[in-house]
Amino acid sequence: MIQSEYSLVPIGHITTPFQEKFAIPRQGALCKHAFGAISFADHINVKHALEGIEEFSHLWILFLFHQNMYQGHKDKIRPPRLGGNKKIGVFASRSSFRPNHIGMSLVKNLGVKDNQLLVAEVDLLTNTPIIDIKPYLPFADINIDAKAGYATMKPSSYLAVIFSEQATKQLSLFELLYRGIKDLVVEVLSQDPRPAYKASKTDSKIYFNKLYDLEVEWTVTNKQVYVKSIKQITPKI
Amino acid sequence: MIQSEYSLVPIGHITTPFQEKFAIPRQGALCKHAFGAISFADHINVKHALEGIEEFSHLWILFLFHQNMYQGHKDKIRPPRLGGNKKIGVFASRSSFRPNHIGMSLVKNLGVKDNQLLVAEVDLLTNTPIIDIKPYLPFADINIDAKAGYATMKPSSYLAVIFSEQATKQLSLFELLYRGIKDLVVEVLSQDPRPAYKASKTDSKIYFNKLYDLEVEWTVTNKQVYVKSIKQITPKI
Repeated sequence: MIQSEYSLVPIGHITTPFQEKFAIPRQGALCKHAFGAISFADHINVKHALEGIEEFSHLWILFLFHQNMYQGHKDKIRPPRLGGNKKIGVFASRSSFRPNHIGMSLVKNLGVKDNQLLVAEVDLLTNTPIIDIKPYLPFADINIDAKAGYATMKPSSYLAVIFSEQATKQLSLFELLYRGIKDLVVEVLSQDPRPAYKASKTDSKIYFNKLYDLEVEWTVTNKQVYVKSIKQITPKI
Repeated sequence: MIQSEYSLVPIGHITTPFQEKFAIPRQGALCKHAFGAISFADHINVKHALEGIEEFSHLWILFLFHQNMYQGHKDKIRPPRLGGNKKIGVFASRSSFRPNHIGMSLVKNLGVKDNQLLVAEVDLLTNTPIIDIKPYLPFADINIDAKAGYATMKPSSYLAVIFSEQATKQLSLFELLYRGIKDLVVEVLSQDPRPAYKASKTDSKIYFNKLYDLEVEWTVTNKQVYVKSIKQITPKI
């Protein structure tokens, strides 16, 4: 007998460099330096539950799109990949506005340290509730015959990312705090985080995005991202 | 802020040939004739929510292991693949005894008909509650570099399946009721559904498994499954 409602208790949460939805990579696999750390809730015996996980190079993370949960679901959505113009069914997309708001993300396993599970290639907001972790099984999860309509292709163009003298100096300092931060900035901005209709286009706007507690200031001209500065955000008290 | 509990409302349920856990294929992809039909709950606008799904040849189905939900979770489990002898962490396995009891299965998309989504290559119990459907995206979901320890290999040996004269006659009749039933019997039994420690071994036991409302009677000798009979189960009133 199917119940009309079940309860879902997070097994933990993940901390990542991503403080806001803007500029979260559309493809985690391209962000080798996007690191995450999963902390577990009290009802999970971490030592036992993660035993043997080191045998797997990659993991599926199931999580909740917690920022969208109170907006309900939409039966049709506009995928950014279609330029935001065409609507398709929510189950024909990976949109976050879905019934039950469950997301699924493939990450690289960096191992267990101090009761946390460390991962890379993440595309999740920091503090996302995690509801399951499963090993990636190539023999079952790879289907080379699969066809995928509008979403077949990787984003085809990447922007070059160049840094001002000021930004370069600032980055070398922040590298001590956040290992790989310069690579992360390149990985995130080269995917062109602007709205789809601006893809690869020059515009005059100044953009800001947050990584960890850093604010990155940049513009786009001639298919190049120009990073002007990177500043530490003063914490609000 | 992470809540301690969220609610989960099934989007529908699936009907499949599998009436019991015994003899459910360990790999759906090898069961081309294991068909399923997903019916949707009233809060889903089926026409809208599935629009464009025909562009995808394969889908992820997220579901609940509903038969195990009231047994709680285990931090360590014994995967059948390791012969049932070695314990590993639940997050290093795809075991059903996991926190939140969420399963993930890759199926073939056969399209929408009469407000149902038809799929193939399923490995789910009939009446399993479905909580999400997502398109399989080769560019994101295929990772050819992934390594998977103990679960790297497909089951290496398959049993031949032979039919008695009686079973052959019965099957030709049931084929009118259930298209592909003979292929399904072969696909299911060739994976050797017996407990792992018996794999490929001869034994004297007579086995029964159910597919749809049919009961299949078989034995295993010399790496061959011998199907003795297939009978329709009289429905209980």
